[in-house]
Amino acid sequence: MTTARFDVAGIGNAIVDVIARTDDAFLTRHGIAKGAMTLIDGHRAKVLEDSLSETTVLPGGSAANTIAGLASLGGAGAFIGRVHDDWLGESFAGGTKAIGVHFDTPFAKDGAPTARSVIMVSPDGQRSMNTYLGASVELDEADVDAKLIGDAKILYVEGYLWDTEALKGAVRKAIAAAKAANRLVAFTLSDAFCVGRFRAEFVELIDNGDVDIVFANETELTSLYETTSFDEAFQNARATGRLFAITRSEKGAVICQGAAVHLIDATPDVAVVDTTGAGDQFAAGFLYGVAKGLPLAVSGKLGVLAAGEVIAHIGPRPQVSLKDLARSAGLI
Amino acid sequence: MTTARFDVAGIGNAIVDVIARTDDAFLTRHGIAKGAMTLIDGHRAKVLEDSLSETTVLPGGSAANTIAGLASLGGAGAFIGRVHDDWLGESFAGGTKAIGVHFDTPFAKDGAPTARSVIMVSPDGQRSMNTYLGASVELDEADVDAKLIGDAKILYVEGYLWDTEALKGAVRKAIAAAKAANRLVAFTLSDAFCVGRFRAEFVELIDNGDVDIVFANETELTSLYETTSFDEAFQNARATGRLFAITRSEKGAVICQGAAVHLIDATPDVAVVDTTGAGDQFAAGFLYGVAKGLPLAVSGKLGVLAAGEVIAHIGPRPQVSLKDLARSAGLI
Repeated sequence: MTTARFDVAGIGNAIVDVIARTDDAFLTRHGIAKGAMTLIDGHRAKVLEDSLSETTVLPGGSAANTIAGLASLGGAGAFIGRVHDDWLGESFAGGTKAIGVHFDTPFAKDGAPTARSVIMVSPDGQRSMNTYLGASVELDEADVDAKLIGDAKILYVEGYLWDTEALKGAVRKAIAAAKAANRLVAFTLSDAFCVGRFRAEFVELIDNGDVDIVFANETELTSLYETTSFDEAFQNARATGRLFAITRSEKGAVICQGAAVHLIDATPDVAVVDTTGAGDQFAAGFLYGVAKGLPLAVSGKLGVLAAGEVIAHIGPRPQVSLKDLARSAGLI
Repeated sequence: MTTARFDVAGIGNAIVDVIARTDDAFLTRHGIAKGAMTLIDGHRAKVLEDSLSETTVLPGGSAANTIAGLASLGGAGAFIGRVHDDWLGESFAGGTKAIGVHFDTPFAKDGAPTARSVIMVSPDGQRSMNTYLGASVELDEADVDAKLIGDAKILYVEGYLWDTEALKGAVRKAIAAAKAANRLVAFTLSDAFCVGRFRAEFVELIDNGDVDIVFANETELTSLYETTSFDEAFQNARATGRLFAITRSEKGAVICQGAAVHLIDATPDVAVVDTTGAGDQFAAGFLYGVAKGLPLAVSGKLGVLAAGEVIAHIGPRPQVSLKDLARSAGLI
């Protein structure tokens, strides 16, 4: 790989997490499905926010979480995503830069306000997420900085972005920029519903070589290949010749590419507090390894290590230095 | 594979299980380690047997259990093992033939009495095993019927047999007979202590091609290759080019041979009652599939199905027809 300013450039929904502790009576009063992720509109987002007295505001979003994890490992990351020119947009940009991630997508002057996920944490630790996608899904080709992408070893794309023609246009421009600069393109299937809606297009992205590295969990992979058998889905993945990094919760991860297959155990004895962000952080560790030219097995172990850290506490981003953790584990 | 009278010929310790229900006071009174397998001598075996009023007597032994599972699947099996000319020997031979397994190793007229495992089942279902190996470990070359082995598609050898020079001689004769007839040789590592004692010899048997198919659980495999990393052991196994069938308890099974890798899930939602015999029955299902020329993934699923049956009840042999189970599951 030729030198590059960034290890990974991520593109995805730029979402601010607005987090509050509430009792379950609050959830009942506002008709919120406990433990679920519900998409809401801007009006409801405002109602919910106004009803909360004390909130913590942090940058979130799947690919942005991954780039944050990469930064925690000591990797050089950049993020592309659309926020509005409002205080939440400022907050997203400020919080992203504060952890050393490059972010310079221009603030949108018109259109919807910045996306936010209003998250109620119940006394038992469960998270109820109410997500308003706002400006993030208005990302378009003009937001995609081809030069920045050409200057990253790996482009990392969130499958969630495959939702409208304008978003697809932005993703296609990003992929073209990466390919033109001889960079790798990594893609996460994001979630099984996402795969259900765009299966044929996702398969084509993989088969035609637009995508070099695929992240999937077990449900997403079996959905992609329309089978109930993990082994069958795994054989399909291997047959593509692409690099697949497949997460299987307590069964660990499977890394495969052509003849190479690695079976990485999950971190043993983790007391699982909140699985939010496990996939995002796995991707962070794995991408760090690939960008640094580490062996696939080590990259897989870095993914498992990062995921093991994030599921042991509330919140989708690491709370300690992943770099220190990885050093203690002898992985870097 | 040329036609053969038998699908699999097993060679191993011919042990009779002498089973009794006792309370825990009995275990305390007799100084028995609850839940453990303890090797005992002939004198202690007699003392324990004499102290039990009501016992159930059934053929057992690891490879013999596997051949019993094969028979339950409808496979044609033979067993080679040494019993003494006593009533337990008669019982082993009779019980083995009764389930359709060919057994004609001549009864030993001299030497130790027939091996038995005196098993106390506690009210909570735990099994305490007290095994006297007796005649079984006096198996020698003269007991090995080369013609019978030549007439089986696969020879299946228990690693437990690798204990004395005379036993090794018997195993070597059996392997030579199988190779001379162009048959496959399968070998189970049996247990991690066994691997610890004979690591170098086991590695050589695999590397030099004496063994074509290796059965191991996770602990045995990592012990064989002296690593704590499952993935590293797995890479070592793949590098040999032999067919490995590796069991990982609730993580299912990994089947690999050169480029082929299959990841077979464990049977979901099994209420585990007694894991004794899980490895033996996995081998039964897998060997049935290989002998019948079924794809590796199907053979692996047959192994998992057989193991899933046996762990749901007390005792190391199937209690229902595995053939019916496999048919219901659409595997045969």
